[in-house]
Amino acid sequence: MTKRWSHQLGKPGRPGYDLASLLDVAVKVFNKHGYDGTSMEMLSAKLGISKSSIYHHVSGKSELLDLALSRALDSLIAVTAEEGATSGAAIDRLEYMVRRTVDLVVADQAYVTLLLRVRGNTAVERRALARRRELDAFLGELVQTAADENDVQPGLDPALVSRLLFGTVNSIVEWHRPSGGTSSQELADTIVAMTFDGLRRT
Amino acid sequence: MTKRWSHQLGKPGRPGYDLASLLDVAVKVFNKHGYDGTSMEMLSAKLGISKSSIYHHVSGKSELLDLALSRALDSLIAVTAEEGATSGAAIDRLEYMVRRTVDLVVADQAYVTLLLRVRGNTAVERRALARRRELDAFLGELVQTAADENDVQPGLDPALVSRLLFGTVNSIVEWHRPSGGTSSQELADTIVAMTFDGLRRT
Repeated sequence: MTKRWSHQLGKPGRPGYDLASLLDVAVKVFNKHGYDGTSMEMLSAKLGISKSSIYHHVSGKSELLDLALSRALDSLIAVTAEEGATSGAAIDRLEYMVRRTVDLVVADQAYVTLLLRVRGNTAVERRALARRRELDAFLGELVQTAADENDVQPGLDPALVSRLLFGTVNSIVEWHRPSGGTSSQELADTIVAMTFDGLRRT
Repeated sequence: MTKRWSHQLGKPGRPGYDLASLLDVAVKVFNKHGYDGTSMEMLSAKLGISKSSIYHHVSGKSELLDLALSRALDSLIAVTAEEGATSGAAIDRLEYMVRRTVDLVVADQAYVTLLLRVRGNTAVERRALARRRELDAFLGELVQTAADENDVQPGLDPALVSRLLFGTVNSIVEWHRPSGGTSSQELADTIVAMTFDGLRRT
C-alpha cells in the first residue's frame, strides 16, 4: 500500500492520505469485512493513521460509504445520458448499456462491488438502493422498448430479462481479477455474444 | 418468526429452536449484517433465547456458518452426479446444470446467498471456497466439452462462458423474492432462452 501526501490535493506539507486514496482503502476493508463488520478502529489500523486523521477528511464511516456509493452510482447513471444510450434502436442502445456497464464495473470494480452488496441497513444505503432502482427502471424500459420494436426473441418477460442481463454483467465482480488478463473488451464481447446471440451453435 | 419446539427433533419438552430453525435465523442475520458484522449477542437477541441455549446446539458462530455453507454446497455438488448431468451431449448436460442450479438457488436462496458472499476470511470460509472451486471446475469442463463437441458458438472462451453463465444464475439471489411470483421454472426457462438461444430476434 502506498501512502500519498495530501499536498497532491493542495494541502502542502500535511502527511497522510488524500481523500481519494483513503476512500480506496476504506472500500477494500468494507468489501472484505462488510460495512457492518468494519469499525473506525479497523480502518485506522489498516491505514496506519489515527482515527482523528480520518476525521480530518470525513465525519465517519457513514460518510465514507456515502462517498464510495455515490462514485459508483454517478458513473453508472451518467452512461444513461450518453448518445449510445439515447439514440438508435433500443436493442442497440441496450447493447451499448451492457458494454459501457462492463467497462465501468471493470474500471471501478471495488466501488461497484460495494454498491452491489448494499442491503439497506442505514439511510445512506437506502438512498443508494433508491438510485439503483432508477437505473434498473431505465434498463427495464430499454428491454421493453426493444421488445416493442420486435427485436427481442418473443415470449420473454422484459423486466426479467433486464434483471438477468445486468445480473450477468454484475457477476463479473465476483471473480474478475483486475490483474488477471481478461480485458474489459473481451468480457463485453463474450457477454454480448452469449446473451444477445446465444451460446448454442445454430 | 415461528419458534419451534425441539421435541420435533426428539428432545421432548425442551422449549426453544431445533437446530434447523436456529440455522435459518442465523443465515438471515449473516446475510443482513455480514458474517463479520454478526455477534453471538445479535443472534441471541434476534432468536429471543440466551447464548447458552444457542451453545446447546453449536459451538459458536463459526459452526453455524459451517453448517449453513455445507448445506448449500452439498445440494449444489450433488447435482453433478445426477443422470442429467452425467449422460448425453455436453450442451444438454450444461442446460441441465443451469436448470437444476436455478431450482436450488430458489429453493434455498438464503443459504446460497450466504455461500456467494463468502470472502475467505476464516478457515471455514476457505474450505467452502475450495469446494466451490471444485464445482466451478466441473462446470468449466462441461462448457469445454460442449465446445469440443461443436455445440457452442465458436470464438468463445469456455472458462469465461462458464463463469458468466453461472454468474447469471447466481445473480437471482440479488433480487428474487421467494413470495414474488416468478417461479423457478420461469426463471430457468428465461435464463436458458437468453443464454443458450440469445435475446436478439433472428
